[in-house]
Amino acid sequence: MSSKSVPSRRNLLGAALGAAAAGAAGYAVAHETGHAGGSPAAARTQEPVPFYGARQAGIATPAQDRLAFAAFDITATDAESVQVMLGTWAAAAAQMTRGLPVGADDRNTQSPPVDTGEAEGLGPARLTVTVGFGPTFFDERFGLSHHRPAALADLPTLPGDGSLQPERSGGDLCVQACADDPTVAFHVIRNFARLARGTAVIRWSQLGFGRTSSTSQAQQTERNLMGFKDGTRNIKSESGTDMADYVWVGKETDQSWMRDGSYLVARRIRMLIESWDTDSLADQQNVFGRFRTSGAPLTGHGEFDTPDLNAKGRDGQPVIPAGAHIRLASPSSNNGQKILRRGYSYTDGIDATTGLLDAGLFFLAYQKDPRKQFVPIQTRLGRQDNLNEYIRHTGSALFAVPPGLKGAGDWWGKSLFA
Amino acid sequence: MSSKSVPSRRNLLGAALGAAAAGAAGYAVAHETGHAGGSPAAARTQEPVPFYGARQAGIATPAQDRLAFAAFDITATDAESVQVMLGTWAAAAAQMTRGLPVGADDRNTQSPPVDTGEAEGLGPARLTVTVGFGPTFFDERFGLSHHRPAALADLPTLPGDGSLQPERSGGDLCVQACADDPTVAFHVIRNFARLARGTAVIRWSQLGFGRTSSTSQAQQTERNLMGFKDGTRNIKSESGTDMADYVWVGKETDQSWMRDGSYLVARRIRMLIESWDTDSLADQQNVFGRFRTSGAPLTGHGEFDTPDLNAKGRDGQPVIPAGAHIRLASPSSNNGQKILRRGYSYTDGIDATTGLLDAGLFFLAYQKDPRKQFVPIQTRLGRQDNLNEYIRHTGSALFAVPPGLKGAGDWWGKSLFA
Repeated sequence: MSSKSVPSRRNLLGAALGAAAAGAAGYAVAHETGHAGGSPAAARTQEPVPFYGARQAGIATPAQDRLAFAAFDITATDAESVQVMLGTWAAAAAQMTRGLPVGADDRNTQSPPVDTGEAEGLGPARLTVTVGFGPTFFDERFGLSHHRPAALADLPTLPGDGSLQPERSGGDLCVQACADDPTVAFHVIRNFARLARGTAVIRWSQLGFGRTSSTSQAQQTERNLMGFKDGTRNIKSESGTDMADYVWVGKETDQSWMRDGSYLVARRIRMLIESWDTDSLADQQNVFGRFRTSGAPLTGHGEFDTPDLNAKGRDGQPVIPAGAHIRLASPSSNNGQKILRRGYSYTDGIDATTGLLDAGLFFLAYQKDPRKQFVPIQTRLGRQDNLNEYIRHTGSALFAVPPGLKGAGDWWGKSLFA
Repeated sequence: MSSKSVPSRRNLLGAALGAAAAGAAGYAVAHETGHAGGSPAAARTQEPVPFYGARQAGIATPAQDRLAFAAFDITATDAESVQVMLGTWAAAAAQMTRGLPVGADDRNTQSPPVDTGEAEGLGPARLTVTVGFGPTFFDERFGLSHHRPAALADLPTLPGDGSLQPERSGGDLCVQACADDPTVAFHVIRNFARLARGTAVIRWSQLGFGRTSSTSQAQQTERNLMGFKDGTRNIKSESGTDMADYVWVGKETDQSWMRDGSYLVARRIRMLIESWDTDSLADQQNVFGRFRTSGAPLTGHGEFDTPDLNAKGRDGQPVIPAGAHIRLASPSSNNGQKILRRGYSYTDGIDATTGLLDAGLFFLAYQKDPRKQFVPIQTRLGRQDNLNEYIRHTGSALFAVPPGLKGAGDWWGKSLFA
């Protein structure tokens, strides 16, 4: 009963680009015909986050509530297919971030719908779509090896990497879809997978149900699944200095196409929930170096008090222990280096082999140069962090996230293929 | 560095009950100290859904946005342990549904925190906690076999059951946590698993990221992952007649303790997303019997128009095909029977064996008697539904959901153990 015709990718590209040109009118229509009420009302009525710009959205954008993330492997062997796919993705992302379906018209009922439809009526929901290139994107297959940035060096094996799973690591490309509605985020990954058919397949994916890191001064600090506030000292995107110094690629790069881009490290960090939950509150607080309820450092009273790493207790021992997470992650312990964290809590149900909850933190961090930022910081943490007793890094990936797209017809990495 | 002392379950019960007695004062404090702004603001400011009452919340309650669900197997062999666990769960649920931590006091830093803390500050988020008993709860282990209701007969093998996985099916107990914030919902399952330690373990669990069924006239109809509006003709809880006729157990029961309870059928229905996405829109609409965009039946113009199952087209064929989902699921095709659906979209990432998306519908349906409702309806659908080409039922479970709890000190099934 079904006609299994695969839609032409080039036609899809045309349809999507045509719709993008139709532009603001289409968005107004979508708004007028949207349902009143329902949920989440806030997400439906919010204005879109601009998709085009000098830098990709989804990095400095105040972190949305929900995440859908996927790493793709390219199965095509020719560069043209990759270009078509990236162009199609870009046109689709321009539509979806405005709360519009991927294609403008599904009146042709004899073809598969251009959009899969599950996000129709949900609005933009502050959707951002951020794409990056893994180190393997620059291998010999597509003639791009001379474009590989030095900062995209493969991550070395780090202390605590013993539990990494290849099937949750790496990837030629990544897509980070963040939105205040989870269906809107999932819709991106599902449509990108569909539009990639014949060219790329999902290697691994991860759903994040709740954000753990604030990236804006306007946001409160959320708690991770250990119950602690996470990312209090995170870079806030309002700090232009921090963003320029630690996040955005500048003139220091050896690859000028990466200017205004960034590097993303993704780590799936499973928490040993059951073990953590039997630890005493005092131990838990010493592991982080913070009070649980207030989020204040053990040397302070308010969440945003600066930790006094030199303070000693009556017993002569540091109030914030030598192995406390905030000590080891502190810029002062890492030659002043910082990263922009943008992580999400995840759960993937029960580990069938142990019966334990498979849950934790899907860590995402943007930075100017992982060799100077994530790698040394994680080397220190992996060796000494008291938290290591309660976590396992089970996935790891690195991506070069290029600058933003100029407008319709542009796509990620377009200049590389010129 | 950690003291792995397991907290006494009886102490936890005492602490939780003590906190419940502290009551409204604690809720006010939690509200006053809550952060301004942040997300999701709506969830944080909403009033709690009452936990105690003649019927359990989470059935007639307008469906919340997010779901965390778990089936537990009891590992203890004595009935007393089960009673203690259920009592502890009830006290904990009373706290959590009001946006309060499980335990009132974590000032004793030498013990593990009574609450795991990740939901602190998120508010009640309209949380409901609904507990049910599977058929195996009434086997010989706990002396309850004479309390087993006839309506809790094991589900027979139904057409299309060939893909059911035992590890995603069954369970002695179920816990359905629904909330407008996913962390608030997850927090329940995680804490219940912790409080159950030594007595029960999670058998399987499922996270639902977006609701697909409205259960109230005040809610709009959401779309499932096939892009179609789902549950347009669902029972609405405002209809006292429908709720009495089809959902709540009445005087017809052979087990008086089930009066004002209901029966829950849970089915994990995987969608063959990639196959569906290549089907034409016309075929898709014939599979459901509805127009995709409007949700109207193929014989109508508005979503809520009554399908005309007798209408024929110019070709003499039924406009709504013989195998269309809405025809076969219609009350008029099922001796007038209806069920209250309360399902959620899920995705569990990539199927490692095929590389395809593992996503679909986690179907939850409440009813007065599955033998007269779900079983005959699904028998018909499983044999004839055009949708079967694109779905696989991969999990199945049945639970007797007892009536509501009277107040502090009551728990699910307490009268059974008297």
